[in-house]
Amino acid sequence: MLFKVEMTVNIPSSLPSAEVEAIKAKEKAYSQRLQREGKWPHIWRVVGQYANVSIFDVADNQELHDILTALPLYPWMAISVQPLCAHPSSIHNE
Amino acid sequence: MLFKVEMTVNIPSSLPSAEVEAIKAKEKAYSQRLQREGKWPHIWRVVGQYANVSIFDVADNQELHDILTALPLYPWMAISVQPLCAHPSSIHNE
Amino acid sequence: MLFKVEMTVNIPSSLPSAEVEAIKAKEKAYSQRLQREGKWPHIWRVVGQYANVSIFDVADNQELHDILTALPLYPWMAISVQPLCAHPSSIHNE
Amino acid sequence: MLFKVEMTVNIPSSLPSAEVEAIKAKEKAYSQRLQREGKWPHIWRVVGQYANVSIFDVADNQELHDILTALPLYPWMAISVQPLCAHPSSIHNE
Amino acid sequence: MLFKVEMTVNIPSSLPSAEVEAIKAKEKAYSQRLQREGKWPHIWRVVGQYANVSIFDVADNQELHDILTALPLYPWMAISVQPLCAHPSSIHNE
Amino acid sequence: MLFKVEMTVNIPSSLPSAEVEAIKAKEKAYSQRLQREGKWPHIWRVVGQYANVSIFDVADNQELHDILTALPLYPWMAISVQPLCAHPSSIHNE
Amino acid sequence: MLFKVEMTVNIPSSLPSAEVEAIKAKEKAYSQRLQREGKWPHIWRVVGQYANVSIFDVADNQELHDILTALPLYPWMAISVQPLCAHPSSIHNE
Amino acid sequence: MLFKVEMTVNIPSSLPSAEVEAIKAKEKAYSQRLQREGKWPHIWRVVGQYANVSIFDVADNQELHDILTALPLYPWMAISVQPLCAHPSSIHNE
Amino acid sequence: MLFKVEMTVNIPSSLPSAEVEAIKAKEKAYSQRLQREGKWPHIWRVVGQYANVSIFDVADNQELHDILTALPLYPWMAISVQPLCAHPSSIHNE
Amino acid sequence: MLFKVEMTVNIPSSLPSAEVEAIKAKEKAYSQRLQREGKWPHIWRVVGQYANVSIFDVADNQELHDILTALPLYPWMAISVQPLCAHPSSIHNE
Repeated sequence: MLFKVEMTVNIPSSLPSAEVEAIKAKEKAYSQRLQREGKWPHIWRVVGQYANVSIFDVADNQELHDILTALPLYPWMAISVQPLCAHPSSIHNE
Repeated sequence: MLFKVEMTVNIPSSLPSAEVEAIKAKEKAYSQRLQREGKWPHIWRVVGQYANVSIFDVADNQELHDILTALPLYPWMAISVQPLCAHPSSIHNE
Repeated sequence: MLFKVEMTVNIPSSLPSAEVEAIKAKEKAYSQRLQREGKWPHIWRVVGQYANVSIFDVADNQELHDILTALPLYPWMAISVQPLCAHPSSIHNE
Repeated sequence: MLFKVEMTVNIPSSLPSAEVEAIKAKEKAYSQRLQREGKWPHIWRVVGQYANVSIFDVADNQELHDILTALPLYPWMAISVQPLCAHPSSIHNE
Repeated sequence: MLFKVEMTVNIPSSLPSAEVEAIKAKEKAYSQRLQREGKWPHIWRVVGQYANVSIFDVADNQELHDILTALPLYPWMAISVQPLCAHPSSIHNE
Repeated sequence: MLFKVEMTVNIPSSLPSAEVEAIKAKEKAYSQRLQREGKWPHIWRVVGQYANVSIFDVADNQELHDILTALPLYPWMAISVQPLCAHPSSIHNE
Repeated sequence: MLFKVEMTVNIPSSLPSAEVEAIKAKEKAYSQRLQREGKWPHIWRVVGQYANVSIFDVADNQELHDILTALPLYPWMAISVQPLCAHPSSIHNE
Repeated sequence: MLFKVEMTVNIPSSLPSAEVEAIKAKEKAYSQRLQREGKWPHIWRVVGQYANVSIFDVADNQELHDILTALPLYPWMAISVQPLCAHPSSIHNE
Repeated sequence: MLFKVEMTVNIPSSLPSAEVEAIKAKEKAYSQRLQREGKWPHIWRVVGQYANVSIFDVADNQELHDILTALPLYPWMAISVQPLCAHPSSIHNE
Repeated sequence: MLFKVEMTVNIPSSLPSAEVEAIKAKEKAYSQRLQREGKWPHIWRVVGQYANVSIFDVADNQELHDILTALPLYPWMAISVQPLCAHPSSIHNE
C-alpha cells in the first residue's frame, strides 16, 4: 500500500553539531535499511530545500506511523502524508 | 532530470460526456506512450481525488513544459511542478 | 484500516431538483449499505454546513478510493482524506 | 452533544524529559478516565503526526471547554473544535 | 448554549430580482421570529460586506444546525460556526 | 459604535508564574471596569482556546485603539478588529 | 474617523458593455461627489489591478457602510475595511 | 511616485526597554524628518495593532528601498509594499 | 526602474477560438514591441502553466500600469507586481 | 536551463555581528563568482525586504541544488524555486 510522504527538516542551531552529525548518520542508516526492505521504495531531494519527497510501501497505516515516528530526525521534521493507489493509466503494477 | 508533478482534473459538467470520454482515451494513450518511453516513470492516483502524483524524467525544463501542455486534459488541469534531484541517502541511482 | 474523510457537497442550482432528489436517495442507500457492512462506521453532520465528517474502515487505500469515487454525490463533492491509526491512550480496540 | 476535536502537540525541547514523561502519563490517565465516562468516545492517532482526531460527547460547550483546558498537555497543544450533529443517512443513533 | 455564527451572502445575478426580494423578506421574518424567541440574541452587519456576525443561544448543536439550514438565504450563504462559553472576566451571566 | 474584536493570548512559558498571575488579575479588573462603563458590552470565551470574542461600543476608532493597547495582556495578544453596524433585520437597537 | 478601504472590481463579461459604461460613469460621479464633500479624501489605483486603495473620513461605522453599499459598482466589488487612527509620529493632524 | 507601505512591528521582549525606547525615539525623529521632506506624506496607526499604513512619495524604487531599510525599527518590522498610481476618478492631483 | 510582474492567463472556454487566436496574436505583437523598446526586457514561461515571469523597466508606476492594463489579454489575466531595485552583490548595472 | 529562485534572509539577532559580516562577505564573493561564470545571470533586491529575486542558468536540477545549498547564507534562507523555459513571445534567445 503506497503513500507519498513529504518531510521538511528544521534542526535548531542550538543543537551541537556533533550531535547533529550522529543523528544524520542514524537517519541515513535507518532510511537505507527500509529502502533495502522495500518499504521505502523512493526518496528524492527537493531542489533548494532540506526536504524530501518519498514513496512508502507498507502493510497498513499503523506500519507507516511506526516507521515515520521512529525516524531519528522525526523530532525536527514537518511531515505530510497522502494515501495513493493505482492509477488506471499506469503501465506499471505499482 | 526528475520532477514531481501533481495534476488535479476539473472537467466542467457542460462538456458533453462523449467528448469527455474521447479526451480521456487520448489522455490515457498519451500517458502510456510517455511511460513506455521512460519520460513519465511513475503515476499514482491520489485517494479520493480526481488527481495524480507523477514523476517525470526529462532532458530539461522545456521538454517538461512541452509534455505537460500537450496533455489532452491540460485545459482542465491545475498543475504544480517541483524539481527533484538525488537524495544522498537513496540506495537507488534515480 | 481507518481513515477520517471530510466531504463537502456543492450542488449547482442548475441541476433539476428531481434529479437532485434522485441522487440524494441513491447516496443515502449507498451510504447505509456501507455502514451496515462496517466499512463506513461513523458519519456525522457538520453544524451549519452541507458537509460530513466520516470514519471509514477499509482493507486498503484502493478500497477507500473505489468507495469514495462511487459515491452518487462524488461529482459535486470536495473530499479530504486523512489516514488514522490506533492511539496509545485509547481504551478501545478501534 | 458531539464535537470533533483535533489536537496537535508541540512540546519544546527545553522541557526536561522526566517532566515530559510525567505530563504524558497524567494525560493518558486523564484521557482514559474521560473515555470510560463516555465523554471522549473516540480518539485516533493521525498517521505521521504527534496529533489526534477525537470525538467528544458532552452536555454543553462549557463542559467541553473545561475538559479541554484541563488536559495536562493543554499548554503545548493547538486545538480546533467543530460542532457535529446527527447525519440523516446515519444508521446509528449517535 | 452560545455560538458565534458568521454568514456571508452571495446571491447570483441570475436569480430574478422579484425572487430575491421575496427570499429576503422571508429571511427577515424568519430572523426576527428567532430573535423574539431569544434564540438569535444578536445580529450585526459587517461594515462594507453583505455579511453578518450573529450570536445564537440554542439548546444544542442539533437545534443550531436545524435553524441555520432553514434560513431562506441558506443556499447562497457561506457560514462559519464557533462554539462559545462563559468568559471568567465577564460581569454578565451570558 | 460597535466593533467585534477577537483576542488570542499566547504567554511565553519563560514569564514567571507570579508575574503571569499579577497580569491576569490586572486584565480582569481592567476588563470589568470597561464592561461596567458599557464600553465592552460582551465578552465570550472561545471553546478550547485561550481566546475571546468581544464586542466593544466606543466613541470612535481612537478610543478603541487606546482601550486595546492598554490591555495588561496586550503584549502577548494577537488581535483582530472588525467594524460593525446595525443589521436591518435586528429587532434590537444595538 | 478614518478607514482604509481596498476595493477590487470584477465585472463579469456577460454584462453588456453599454451597461458597464453607464455604471462606471455613475461610479465616477458618486466617488467625486464624496471626494468633494471630504468623506473620501484619498483614492489611488493599484498598479496592474482593477483595484483601488482608498481612505474614508466618516462620522461612524454606519456612514461608511451606507457609502460603500451605495457604490454603483458595489455588486461586483470585493471590499476590505481597516479602521485607522492617528499615528503618534505623524506631523499631520489627520 | 506613490507607494502604499504597511509595517508591523514585533520587538522581542529580550530587548532591554532602555534600548527599545532609544530606538523608538530615533524612529520617530527619522519618520518626522521624511514627513517634513514630503517623502512620507501619510502615516496612520492600524487600530488594535502595533502597525501602520503609510504612503510614500519617492523618486524611484531604489529611494524607497533605501528609506525603508534605514528605518531604526527595520530589523523588527514585517513590511509590505504596493505600487500606486493616479486613479482616474480622483479629483486630486496626487 | 525595474519590476517583477507575474501574469497567469485564464481564458474561458466560452470565448470563440478565432477570437482567442486574434487576441493572442495582438498580445504577441504588443509584447514584442515593448521588448524591442526595452520596456519589457525579460519574459519567461513558467513550466507547466499558462503563465509568465516578466521583468519590466519603466519610467514610473504610472507607465507600468498603463502598459499592463493595455495588454490584449489583460481581461483574462491575474497579475502580481513586485518593485525591484539594484542588489548590492550584482555585478551588472541593471 | 533557467530557474527563478526567490530567497528571503532571516538572520537571528543572536548571531554575533562579526560573524554575520563574515558570512555576508563570503555570500557576496560566492554570488559574484557564479554571476561571472554565467550561472547566476540576474539578481535583484526586492524593495523593502531582505530578499532577492534571482535567475539561475544551470545544467540541471542537481547543479541548482548544489549551488543553493552551498550559499553561505543558506542556513538562514527561505528559498523557493520555479522552473522556467522559453516564452514563445520572447524576442531574446534566453
